[in-house]
Amino acid sequence: MEYFPAPLEALVEQFARLPGIGGKTAQRLAFHVLSLPEEDAQAFADAIVTAKRTVTYCPVCRNFTAGGLCPICSSPKRDNSVICVVADPRDVAAMERGREFNGKYHVLHGVISPMNHVGPDDIAIKPLLERVAQGGVEEVIMATNPDTEGEATAMYIARLLKPFEVKVTRLAYGIPVGGHLEFADDATLARALEGRREL
Amino acid sequence: MEYFPAPLEALVEQFARLPGIGGKTAQRLAFHVLSLPEEDAQAFADAIVTAKRTVTYCPVCRNFTAGGLCPICSSPKRDNSVICVVADPRDVAAMERGREFNGKYHVLHGVISPMNHVGPDDIAIKPLLERVAQGGVEEVIMATNPDTEGEATAMYIARLLKPFEVKVTRLAYGIPVGGHLEFADDATLARALEGRREL
Repeated sequence: MEYFPAPLEALVEQFARLPGIGGKTAQRLAFHVLSLPEEDAQAFADAIVTAKRTVTYCPVCRNFTAGGLCPICSSPKRDNSVICVVADPRDVAAMERGREFNGKYHVLHGVISPMNHVGPDDIAIKPLLERVAQGGVEEVIMATNPDTEGEATAMYIARLLKPFEVKVTRLAYGIPVGGHLEFADDATLARALEGRREL
Repeated sequence: MEYFPAPLEALVEQFARLPGIGGKTAQRLAFHVLSLPEEDAQAFADAIVTAKRTVTYCPVCRNFTAGGLCPICSSPKRDNSVICVVADPRDVAAMERGREFNGKYHVLHGVISPMNHVGPDDIAIKPLLERVAQGGVEEVIMATNPDTEGEATAMYIARLLKPFEVKVTRLAYGIPVGGHLEFADDATLARALEGRREL
């Protein structure tokens, strides 16, 4: 493609690099940016740079934070004795929407997946064990997705947690099997939390 | 949503403003940006600002240009006596991929669409008439999409061009009726150009 000016081609290429965005969509998005008022385009660019520069991982739970402890980890209202382990920051958002859970989180940033060459050391399992080893934790709720990899990851972590004599539970199968936590409705998530069982 | 740090929420919101990008996709794209190396995120932001600042419309054909006349309008190798009228800059790219056409273009930036409150004055018809009035044009090829609005726009412009005694042609129906020029394959476009008929 050399039918558009180079800066436009460069923008199309940037959009096309995003996951799930094909060539035609990238073109459409780039054209849309050109149709924006200059201050809106600038605001979009600023949002990218600002998010990238300021958003980091919470040193305790590994969820996103704008620096220092995340709002949940630093909240005195949240129960320190329960840790809910999720695969992805989006799952924290899904749990929070349910308003049933008042403990803390731990974000693994992935699940064990030999098919995709993701081993136990590639996700945040070690920091979880360190948190539990520090004491004060009574229950760890495994809230990985109810699919094969999520199940396997939950079982794997449950086994590692055995020596710490902490209660390890799993979200009940209120969540449709094979589905994804991110898309569960609030009622289903609440019931899954309510019916959690010991591993 | 207040489960993510404000700069991340702001970025999600920016993505969600793009046409055809829903909330879940916006989240996915924002997370992807956070996972990029800082220089890549900066390059993305720079591409937006640079494209917006430097890309304008060609004063002659209204296609995108990085300043001044577009490469096609300023090329001495292109035939000045034939103007191909398209609705969108993407259609210029589609025509150029076909490699059959060696004239100039005119980009309307839309079609007449009473349903969407787009009248003849909302698209670049007047600049086209001014170009033809300057003389030297022997043929105007109407290459709007072969759907109702594209047809109506072509007929409308053909009528306005009558006084200038210029040949006005329409792309042949090699293009599937009801389809969009942008998605036509090169061979179909070539045949459509070849079989154009006088309006």
